[in-house]
Amino acid sequence: MNGEIIAVGSELLLGQIANTNAKFISQQLAGIGVNVFYHTVVGDNAERLKRAVEIAESRSNLIIFTGGLGPTKDDLTKETIANHLGVKLVHNEAALGSIEEFFRKRNVTMTPNNRKQALVFEHAEVLPNDTGMAPGMVLTKNEITYMLLPGPPSEMEPMFSNYGMKAILNRLESIDRIESRVLRFFGIGESTLEHTLEDFIDQQTNPTIAPLASDGEVTLRLTAKHPSDLERRRLLDETEAKIMERVGEFFYGYDETTIIKEMGNLIESNNMTLSVAESLTGGLFQEEVTSIAGVSKWFQGGIVSYSPEIKINVLGVNPDTVETYGVVSKECAMEMAENVRKLMDTDIGISFTGVAGPASLEGKEPGSVYIGVSFKNKPTASHFVLLPGNRETVRVRAVKTGAWYILKELR
Amino acid sequence: MNGEIIAVGSELLLGQIANTNAKFISQQLAGIGVNVFYHTVVGDNAERLKRAVEIAESRSNLIIFTGGLGPTKDDLTKETIANHLGVKLVHNEAALGSIEEFFRKRNVTMTPNNRKQALVFEHAEVLPNDTGMAPGMVLTKNEITYMLLPGPPSEMEPMFSNYGMKAILNRLESIDRIESRVLRFFGIGESTLEHTLEDFIDQQTNPTIAPLASDGEVTLRLTAKHPSDLERRRLLDETEAKIMERVGEFFYGYDETTIIKEMGNLIESNNMTLSVAESLTGGLFQEEVTSIAGVSKWFQGGIVSYSPEIKINVLGVNPDTVETYGVVSKECAMEMAENVRKLMDTDIGISFTGVAGPASLEGKEPGSVYIGVSFKNKPTASHFVLLPGNRETVRVRAVKTGAWYILKELR
Repeated sequence: MNGEIIAVGSELLLGQIANTNAKFISQQLAGIGVNVFYHTVVGDNAERLKRAVEIAESRSNLIIFTGGLGPTKDDLTKETIANHLGVKLVHNEAALGSIEEFFRKRNVTMTPNNRKQALVFEHAEVLPNDTGMAPGMVLTKNEITYMLLPGPPSEMEPMFSNYGMKAILNRLESIDRIESRVLRFFGIGESTLEHTLEDFIDQQTNPTIAPLASDGEVTLRLTAKHPSDLERRRLLDETEAKIMERVGEFFYGYDETTIIKEMGNLIESNNMTLSVAESLTGGLFQEEVTSIAGVSKWFQGGIVSYSPEIKINVLGVNPDTVETYGVVSKECAMEMAENVRKLMDTDIGISFTGVAGPASLEGKEPGSVYIGVSFKNKPTASHFVLLPGNRETVRVRAVKTGAWYILKELR
Repeated sequence: MNGEIIAVGSELLLGQIANTNAKFISQQLAGIGVNVFYHTVVGDNAERLKRAVEIAESRSNLIIFTGGLGPTKDDLTKETIANHLGVKLVHNEAALGSIEEFFRKRNVTMTPNNRKQALVFEHAEVLPNDTGMAPGMVLTKNEITYMLLPGPPSEMEPMFSNYGMKAILNRLESIDRIESRVLRFFGIGESTLEHTLEDFIDQQTNPTIAPLASDGEVTLRLTAKHPSDLERRRLLDETEAKIMERVGEFFYGYDETTIIKEMGNLIESNNMTLSVAESLTGGLFQEEVTSIAGVSKWFQGGIVSYSPEIKINVLGVNPDTVETYGVVSKECAMEMAENVRKLMDTDIGISFTGVAGPASLEGKEPGSVYIGVSFKNKPTASHFVLLPGNRETVRVRAVKTGAWYILKELR
């Protein structure tokens, strides 16, 4: 099966958004061994879309479209493909019902163009949209499979993961099956990791090993190809064990997990609770924690003490500490972590103070970060790191580094 | 001039990274009126790349390539295009010098494959690489312009902005110049906005009007085409005024701004300060505020009161309120907003409590959100909204909705 992804939307060609949908779909398809040879982006224009489809049909037998399923005149993916394939569009009753329900619930009058969203190809397999209105669809005709997905990632991603992947797996021969496993590392650079494993990566063909660095993390993607499920698994296990012998201390998890999630799992399994005091990260650590459902078992809350006044008046940092050492100091970080832990009555308190940039602060350069970690019945610790990058990457890396300290402490 | 961007790299087709290069280049080209009709992504494979070039040549006269200029065997963009066009590759002395310099400075022995990076098309205009090794190049042949840029955004972006754009402008007729303006709206759905402006959008040809919805917002992109700078500006102003007559109450800003930024500007110009109490949004509002540099003038800090205990013990919400109405209630939202404002001694306090999902809470369905807004010397208000989408989009939209309430109150 040769895949091609066609994203439809002039906003992509105008550079208003990046084609993250193609990234998401490609990643999922790579995991089940479907080769993607092309991504195409085309605007909201029927004629150009039709030509892109013809080109795709000449080289691919799985064509996945994203975008253009909405209610407006610009949304013409469905109509164009239906016309090109000579299939009828019919109203899907389930989708129409949930669209009407959506408006009824909100007491908003439904404009007529919204009915268009419930149109699907006749005889297509319909993919439900659990987070929006327009359903997706799959149809195989002349040995080519056409899948239409909505454009907004918040609708496309759950639809593709929950329904689209199943539809593709049903059409796939088991002989082509591959299996991927991603090993995630923190606290080691890409070149160091690659250097440590160099001989090994080069001689390895099944599974293949592909390193990738992003946002201070490094991942290794192992990809094994074998008709037998068991044998694929065994090949991956064997290679993973060899890698772990050399760099296991930097490993934190598999596949799509995050350091924050792994930290949370450990806190929860230890029956502990966490609270947070954030200055330079401004809420990012807590935002990432609470983006995971069900964290209320171990996450209590925290303080964003952005100004010195809040550090002193709400968090109870000693004014002398701020006066003597400044807010960007190990002393301030330690008091912040310890005080938030006591204030919120938790087992662990963590704090972040530092310079996100672009300007320096208290004579410290952007990227300077102090992370305080306070465990009940243990002496409070403070770590200094100098993080590379701009304001955004400094904050992101500070958050990961903090989670990494808690994770290391707990395991 | 019709543009097409061809990104070369198997990592894109495996979904390891998104094609942000195409976004960047498209945005720059849109600003000078060059239409981009297609993006293509193709892997590190000479045969497939050659076919992609042939397709591009049949429909575009400006073809921009990113990626595949590096030293490894996988990097074959230059060789493939040179072969296809029948042009010679020659060493560029300046580039070769700076590559040698790079290794000398770091006391690293230069491996022979690095010399390959200094190869350029004979007679091409060379684009210097100020942040890396491989130079870019531009060549016009048979009325088609080919531009080759490196893949890493940190090299591609400065090269394209500083040298690539100039090379394109030199080839562009002033007659084709366009100018775009994006109008941003909140509190109105895409279909309603489009319905309200329908007659107007349909009859409008210069500027064109393109609506786009994402994450609860709607934007209209106006694009005017005219040789004169002044006349382009006048066309945009005229159309904007007509749009504002009908939907001006939902407008919040231009181009790349955000509701949070516009809210911040208004708070700052009113010499006011803000504090925040977050439950379901878990720090997201504060994270978005503090991602803007310089907010310490008006943002003090806040509390993430994720558990009921923190709402009561730290934020001082009345236990009876929680008992009688629950934490997902207008009463709790109002106390949270008012109490955080007093605790942090600010002019404005805002609070978020609700159900992010996936599970219901206190009998309220996911997406139910109460937003409390407390201004000093005004009665505290509470707003209920039922937001669509998954956990992530509910949180994102709640944050925007809160900022929108403060913004409306202040203007």
